[in-house]
Amino acid sequence: MKLTVVGAGNVGATVAECVARMDIVQNIALVDINEGVAQGKALDLMEAAPIHGFDTVIEGGADYAITKGSDVTVITAGLPRKPGMSRDDLLAKNAEIVSSVTRSVVDQSPDTTIIVVSNPLDVMTYVAYMESGFPSQRVMGMAGILDTARYRAFLKMELGVSVRDINAMLLGGHGDSMTPLPRFTTVGSQPVTDLIDEARLDEIITRTKKGGGEIVGLMGTSAWYAPGAGAAEMVEAIVKDSKRVLPCAAWVTGQYGLEDMFIGVPVKLGRGGVEEIVELDLNDKETADMKASGEHVREVIGAYENLKAQA
Amino acid sequence: MKLTVVGAGNVGATVAECVARMDIVQNIALVDINEGVAQGKALDLMEAAPIHGFDTVIEGGADYAITKGSDVTVITAGLPRKPGMSRDDLLAKNAEIVSSVTRSVVDQSPDTTIIVVSNPLDVMTYVAYMESGFPSQRVMGMAGILDTARYRAFLKMELGVSVRDINAMLLGGHGDSMTPLPRFTTVGSQPVTDLIDEARLDEIITRTKKGGGEIVGLMGTSAWYAPGAGAAEMVEAIVKDSKRVLPCAAWVTGQYGLEDMFIGVPVKLGRGGVEEIVELDLNDKETADMKASGEHVREVIGAYENLKAQA
Amino acid sequence: MKLTVVGAGNVGATVAECVARMDIVQNIALVDINEGVAQGKALDLMEAAPIHGFDTVIEGGADYAITKGSDVTVITAGLPRKPGMSRDDLLAKNAEIVSSVTRSVVDQSPDTTIIVVSNPLDVMTYVAYMESGFPSQRVMGMAGILDTARYRAFLKMELGVSVRDINAMLLGGHGDSMTPLPRFTTVGSQPVTDLIDEARLDEIITRTKKGGGEIVGLMGTSAWYAPGAGAAEMVEAIVKDSKRVLPCAAWVTGQYGLEDMFIGVPVKLGRGGVEEIVELDLNDKETADMKASGEHVREVIGAYENLKAQA
Amino acid sequence: MKLTVVGAGNVGATVAECVARMDIVQNIALVDINEGVAQGKALDLMEAAPIHGFDTVIEGGADYAITKGSDVTVITAGLPRKPGMSRDDLLAKNAEIVSSVTRSVVDQSPDTTIIVVSNPLDVMTYVAYMESGFPSQRVMGMAGILDTARYRAFLKMELGVSVRDINAMLLGGHGDSMTPLPRFTTVGSQPVTDLIDEARLDEIITRTKKGGGEIVGLMGTSAWYAPGAGAAEMVEAIVKDSKRVLPCAAWVTGQYGLEDMFIGVPVKLGRGGVEEIVELDLNDKETADMKASGEHVREVIGAYENLKAQA
Repeated sequence: MKLTVVGAGNVGATVAECVARMDIVQNIALVDINEGVAQGKALDLMEAAPIHGFDTVIEGGADYAITKGSDVTVITAGLPRKPGMSRDDLLAKNAEIVSSVTRSVVDQSPDTTIIVVSNPLDVMTYVAYMESGFPSQRVMGMAGILDTARYRAFLKMELGVSVRDINAMLLGGHGDSMTPLPRFTTVGSQPVTDLIDEARLDEIITRTKKGGGEIVGLMGTSAWYAPGAGAAEMVEAIVKDSKRVLPCAAWVTGQYGLEDMFIGVPVKLGRGGVEEIVELDLNDKETADMKASGEHVREVIGAYENLKAQA
Repeated sequence: MKLTVVGAGNVGATVAECVARMDIVQNIALVDINEGVAQGKALDLMEAAPIHGFDTVIEGGADYAITKGSDVTVITAGLPRKPGMSRDDLLAKNAEIVSSVTRSVVDQSPDTTIIVVSNPLDVMTYVAYMESGFPSQRVMGMAGILDTARYRAFLKMELGVSVRDINAMLLGGHGDSMTPLPRFTTVGSQPVTDLIDEARLDEIITRTKKGGGEIVGLMGTSAWYAPGAGAAEMVEAIVKDSKRVLPCAAWVTGQYGLEDMFIGVPVKLGRGGVEEIVELDLNDKETADMKASGEHVREVIGAYENLKAQA
Repeated sequence: MKLTVVGAGNVGATVAECVARMDIVQNIALVDINEGVAQGKALDLMEAAPIHGFDTVIEGGADYAITKGSDVTVITAGLPRKPGMSRDDLLAKNAEIVSSVTRSVVDQSPDTTIIVVSNPLDVMTYVAYMESGFPSQRVMGMAGILDTARYRAFLKMELGVSVRDINAMLLGGHGDSMTPLPRFTTVGSQPVTDLIDEARLDEIITRTKKGGGEIVGLMGTSAWYAPGAGAAEMVEAIVKDSKRVLPCAAWVTGQYGLEDMFIGVPVKLGRGGVEEIVELDLNDKETADMKASGEHVREVIGAYENLKAQA
Repeated sequence: MKLTVVGAGNVGATVAECVARMDIVQNIALVDINEGVAQGKALDLMEAAPIHGFDTVIEGGADYAITKGSDVTVITAGLPRKPGMSRDDLLAKNAEIVSSVTRSVVDQSPDTTIIVVSNPLDVMTYVAYMESGFPSQRVMGMAGILDTARYRAFLKMELGVSVRDINAMLLGGHGDSMTPLPRFTTVGSQPVTDLIDEARLDEIITRTKKGGGEIVGLMGTSAWYAPGAGAAEMVEAIVKDSKRVLPCAAWVTGQYGLEDMFIGVPVKLGRGGVEEIVELDLNDKETADMKASGEHVREVIGAYENLKAQA
């Protein structure tokens, strides 16, 4: 098996690191327009291999020839979000980057499965889908795993229990428009709503929604440890054909009353990519939140389509 | 940190193997009246260490001197259940064994935490508690992790999803008297009751209750891979002070309307042992099941007390 | 990828357990004439999966149909060595078993790679090779990893250093006829001969040669933790195409002055099986030992051929 | 157990990440004068925890109060080496930083063991030792693991075998003054000198010596994956009391004809820190190289002492 990671920035390199340490693919190609950075990080990872004990071979470069024949591709390319910059500000520039990257990827690996991490996530996944011409099962976005990981981390801080026993699900678009599902969050099987009162849980959910911004505010740059680990978890599920059930941005065709867009939903992930979309039984409030989230995604797609029409 | 495992049968040796492979304790003492078996399995595990890459030192023997100063002790001693033999048939003989073992353990390691795996589980944990004179936080039984693992395995077989995304909780006594909690079972955060109809779920729960007997029926002897892994997971939580939330047989003092017995409940496990008992909000049916389970445990304790009074 | 393990005894089940816990194959078939034991152990392992977190599906049975399409096959079938029984006593019976098993394996999986663990090892590997008609690269025996693991374990006991920093190689037949190579044994890169004097090292080598018998003497039955882990390490190298350099029983064609037999030599293991035989530069003493070991293997092959001719 | 990492730059954050993922300490404090970066990286790592499944709590900040009571401390503080900058150029500035940091560390954790990663390595370790007033066993530098990891990575690239079977040792100062030991390098127990001719091996050794500069040349900044993993491996050996034998910068008292300096030698690492210095039996060429390396380290210490006297 072979993985390509497009973009050797912090997130891309972390994806490569996490997957390499799983020792589940023979090769990783790390491609970036900045050839030296791609080569340097690939080499540094290769030099860490004897310590970690993995045998995955990592190659860095600027030429997509090194990505040839990849089974899975993670696209992290795009400008990072800067302090004060909204996700949507990134739209035009990143759509151009993701379009171009997708063409190069598909050219070398017509059978690959694509995981998009670039922001604004839901629309960049749409761009990769349109540009690739792939069946929708083989294109998806990473956001829900990151959002639930943040949510679970905050719940761990609140409750002092192991992260391994906090189970959560979030739907909808990435960031402010996500759809929180406290009813579907459990701590050792106990509903979190029995443990934390509504007001405090609302604060935690708000912090989760703004989780990306919190890191940017502290560091002046976007997060990478959790985003990279999240994308690597999706790669693992596909490579191992694990049938994991994870929240991913997937192409909906009527589920949750939404269609013709990528939006965060629980999916079953295996060698075939998005093998199934799981439909949770939402209550009225949750359904309304999901509808609102879908409208937000629809608007950004509209903005993208407008920009594209004008170009 | 040091672990003692009492009983070098299949379950005991599996506990030692699983904990050794975690490489989280410096020493494991494997003690058994059959000295050769204890020594042989300890040696075989030591000889596997260079392949697995762990440095835990495992020593086997019949003399409890090798257990001195243990932080955690797992008691697996007792006669195995044979085909056609009920758990309760084992009562008298195993109570005698567990009493004797507990005295020897406490003598060498007055500050250890004790995890009982011997059957009938809930009562053998009671025996170890009484005999040790330890605070209740430092005595517990392993059954719920095994029962939920079986339940999750059967759900995986039914639904074809990763075990990592099936979350479950069961309460009550070990075996037939367990209290199933379908409402608290989720698959990727989706309630299992949305995925499997009631009749089929009842069959799966029944299979879970009789899971020990199913293995005995096939092999003519009790299971060890899942029981051993279950006890090792408890050891890990205590050694690492992880604050895992896991179903264990713990001393109840009014929770779930029960007191003065060990019965399966969700607990928070850390360096302090059972640091907290989690009280789930049960419905009437579940409460009734739990009450019935408690009565069953009470009866076996009564039987044990009678036997003891007669002795 | 799919693994078949033939023989659901202690060693076979341990191979299945170790490989399942690596989570590197989708399926494991555990086949044994004792159908209940194969099914019971497979089920017990499946029930341990939620605790360990692996998604490999393990199926047990007596019908080789469950092994169909395996990429790697480990043959552990054969009578176990009993106290006082030499490895060679097992010859006739186990040759019959391994022949029969090999035909069934090949019938279902004509492209599989075969790892033999049955004793007497070098000859049983020869039997599987002859019976399968496979290219020699795809048939090999597991013994050297076990022998070096024992040797490294004893060196750890002697020196008190981590097993991860003890590196060793042994050649030749399994058991008494092995060829010790103290010159090629290092502790943190330091030659072991600088750390332990010759007389003491000889004792350790003698203990290693008799390592199987030591366990049998203690337990009344053969070891399984280290042998199972050793075979699993070979499976891992093949499945992951890791190009590990490990001592295995391989078909020699002139290397070390030996040919037309399976004997322990360092090999490079990858998806292609035995991709290369490594030729160490031996001194006169080592060469003589290797020659003697080869003669011993030749004798047992002769004994087998005689038995076969008479049958 | 608690770990402090001083410096939240790339190397420091990687140390924290690697140790957190081992799940072997309860707490990690990540301290940096840039408070936001320390907090942001700590938070990002905490948010990755639910994905990786570790429960180590990571806290970031600028105030050393968060480091209180640490068992192990890794000092990565110091200016990074820029392209064209020699390791020694960093001397004056980094000595000042390491001195100040060491005082703060010791103030909060008088019983900690210190691992220095700051460059120039051998002298910065000396600075930390002098400033701490600690016994020499509890102060050491990380360089040899990084250098051997690079060397092993290059050998893997050359020979196409698993990194797990390439074993190497290097002595002496970090960087250009290291002492290569081809005689002590093995591939699956075979001396590397039997596999690669002298001219080619010299090229590989030269590449290893200049390995840090190669990465800086490509990326414009220093490496972190391999250095961070190297320091984490030392932390692991100390926390687990593993008795690993690893090349570290340790205080020599006559070994290899050197004294009163920190220089790369094989050491046995355990809970007590540097529990033993391993003395390899060097030939004349190696001894001369080691002497030259010692002289180089002596010179840099002299330069540091001069700077200090003038200050």
